[in-house]
Amino acid sequence: MSISSIVPDSPLKRIVIAGGGFGGITLVKKFRNKNFQVVLIDRNNYHTFQPLLYQVATGGLEPDSIAYPLRKIFQGYKNFYFRMAEIQRVDTHSKVVETDAGPISYDYLILACGSTNNFFGMDELAANAMPLKSVTDALDLRSLILQNLEQSLEPGANKEELLNLVVAGGGPTGVETAGALCELRNHVLPNDYPEINFMQTRIILVEAGKGLLAGMSDFSSGKALHALQTMGVEVMLNNPVKQFDGKKVMLADGTSIPARTLIWSAGVKGAAIPGIPEAVLMRNGRVKVDRFNRVEGETSIFVIGDLAFMSEENYPNGHPMVAPVAMQQAENLGANLLSNNDATLWKPFKYTNKGAMATIGRNKAVAELPFLKLSGFLAWLLWMFIHLMTLVGFRNRLVVFVNWMVNYFSYDRAVRLIIRPFSRKM
Amino acid sequence: MSISSIVPDSPLKRIVIAGGGFGGITLVKKFRNKNFQVVLIDRNNYHTFQPLLYQVATGGLEPDSIAYPLRKIFQGYKNFYFRMAEIQRVDTHSKVVETDAGPISYDYLILACGSTNNFFGMDELAANAMPLKSVTDALDLRSLILQNLEQSLEPGANKEELLNLVVAGGGPTGVETAGALCELRNHVLPNDYPEINFMQTRIILVEAGKGLLAGMSDFSSGKALHALQTMGVEVMLNNPVKQFDGKKVMLADGTSIPARTLIWSAGVKGAAIPGIPEAVLMRNGRVKVDRFNRVEGETSIFVIGDLAFMSEENYPNGHPMVAPVAMQQAENLGANLLSNNDATLWKPFKYTNKGAMATIGRNKAVAELPFLKLSGFLAWLLWMFIHLMTLVGFRNRLVVFVNWMVNYFSYDRAVRLIIRPFSRKM
Repeated sequence: MSISSIVPDSPLKRIVIAGGGFGGITLVKKFRNKNFQVVLIDRNNYHTFQPLLYQVATGGLEPDSIAYPLRKIFQGYKNFYFRMAEIQRVDTHSKVVETDAGPISYDYLILACGSTNNFFGMDELAANAMPLKSVTDALDLRSLILQNLEQSLEPGANKEELLNLVVAGGGPTGVETAGALCELRNHVLPNDYPEINFMQTRIILVEAGKGLLAGMSDFSSGKALHALQTMGVEVMLNNPVKQFDGKKVMLADGTSIPARTLIWSAGVKGAAIPGIPEAVLMRNGRVKVDRFNRVEGETSIFVIGDLAFMSEENYPNGHPMVAPVAMQQAENLGANLLSNNDATLWKPFKYTNKGAMATIGRNKAVAELPFLKLSGFLAWLLWMFIHLMTLVGFRNRLVVFVNWMVNYFSYDRAVRLIIRPFSRKM
Repeated sequence: MSISSIVPDSPLKRIVIAGGGFGGITLVKKFRNKNFQVVLIDRNNYHTFQPLLYQVATGGLEPDSIAYPLRKIFQGYKNFYFRMAEIQRVDTHSKVVETDAGPISYDYLILACGSTNNFFGMDELAANAMPLKSVTDALDLRSLILQNLEQSLEPGANKEELLNLVVAGGGPTGVETAGALCELRNHVLPNDYPEINFMQTRIILVEAGKGLLAGMSDFSSGKALHALQTMGVEVMLNNPVKQFDGKKVMLADGTSIPARTLIWSAGVKGAAIPGIPEAVLMRNGRVKVDRFNRVEGETSIFVIGDLAFMSEENYPNGHPMVAPVAMQQAENLGANLLSNNDATLWKPFKYTNKGAMATIGRNKAVAELPFLKLSGFLAWLLWMFIHLMTLVGFRNRLVVFVNWMVNYFSYDRAVRLIIRPFSRKM
């Protein structure tokens, strides 16, 4: 008995890929015009270039510069179907994925759903903090910052709460966001708001661990700390956020910071799908896979990228949740599935770390390549070049380049429009 | 007794300007660093370049290209205050404007609030039709069109309803929107949706009057009609829309068109503010003013632009609701207020019509200058040039230019992202 499906039947084996992030699109490209029917499912009709979300939030770029229509990437692919749908659950027994657009059966299911925010059980904080994982998150954050500036001018407004900005998490996202906010405050906003004394506003970066950019060397960590402090960011280390009621941020050591805006980049977890066996779900939401990205105990379900927990020699606690891991796993898994039906002949995955980088502001970045550590202007140029090249699409590269040039030479950020005012769901 | 106000007190006379459209920003510029305290109030923190909204809706441009932060326009102005607020009512007796941010008293009040949609009492239509007056409208329309395309692929979907597009109103907005939708369907969408047979989808432009572009000559009207029909738009004349339940559009002659999307550009009315005396309110929502843009019977309230109804020799039924009228009235009113306290010495307003134009698609437009009528490629170049020059800000001009060039040579539209899915409020 066959069930009705959201894509046409085919004599080919069907691969269903969940998620159009870096892993998902690499996989689809790998299967271009091969002997499979390939179905990509994503809740959005676009791929998000997450590393630049913070620039959308801080007014440097518009969403269309960093998001790219998935259908456009795969124009002309044979036996390929994209469906914009929310995945509800997977039935591993009957090999069916349920979505809000209807069910779809699979021969192979590849989960590339990435990660979601981890608030570590702090519900009040979760309801009030601003995450930065999606385009909508970035636009909401932008609106909130601008709305609070406007509101601070009202008679009797609590200026301190409205103007302070707290960033939680000293990883690349937190560092880049804090730096961009600081540039906004130092160079852009004073021209727009002569009534506000920006010397009295605080931008605070809070990190639970002992240093910034934990994944990089002490050299880069120190450079980033120094650069942020020079710009005027207050960096608080060894001090995790404990509570946030929407008006003040409470830290572990008892410090209380009046602020309506807490940007959350202090934790992510795997975004698993209902129906995945409990036995393979890790505490951090990742799904345990073997060296072939196969879910333990399954032969037709694979997981790649942020969602996958794979123990490798140098990475006993799993790989970092970054784009290169997802893309390399997609390459390896795609090659395995295409090469041979006999899984005993497959190649195990091995991660090649090509480096890490973070930008802090104008002419300031840190970059670590396998045999070279850079900081300052050169690292910043390299950061821009690599991000421009990694963007999908010629027009996006051109528009981002134009925006960066205009922003650089004008000391300005173009985008400070409150298109959709943000209001808390509470 | 003075009341608390949303701006600081000043010994200068205070001019409150409601609305940051073409009229409002022209006025503020006119009063730059003069002996007045100038307060601009708008519900948005940006100026919208309305003539290009249809390109945002049809995926050719992003909002930041056609919207411009109001604060940025007026950087460095002395005694100038911008307040993002919704005006609730005006008390002409005590000379106070109430806003959701607080009250503000005025010496002179200038209403430049523009126009809003006129659905002529058709409530069901109003609830279901998609207007095109604001950036949010444009984004909602874009999302709806794309969502319906995705939904048409679901098993059992009503393809006809989901894919047909109806535009109501054959003025410049309706003509330009229908043309842009047709280009999207003919050149862009088939590459994204090989599963959809776009030959079967209809784009219909419905006009109540006997011809398109009623404000222009028969020559231009005929050219526009021919160009649209050649592209594949069905144009229905002498046939006003009577009803729309969200699933089918009913016309006056009984024609029924299955369609979920009805774009409303068939009527606008003045967006008057509660508190304006009933006696000066026209049936179309405009406010009766004398030749000095002064509200009849008032000495300190003025109205300019779409909201103003002024009877002039050549315009006994009021001026057309277009940007040049608003800007010229702002110029004249500003000059009068600056020149002399004695209103008997003021110069009456006289409208200089510099022409009209509308674009239909690639290389196709009509333009009428005082002594010249153009159509085709030259008119199209002129249209682009004038719109680029009228945009506010160097960056916006550059980004729009880059987008237009990429769109032109690639036969593509960059922007087909569903950032915020649209759902009807019903």
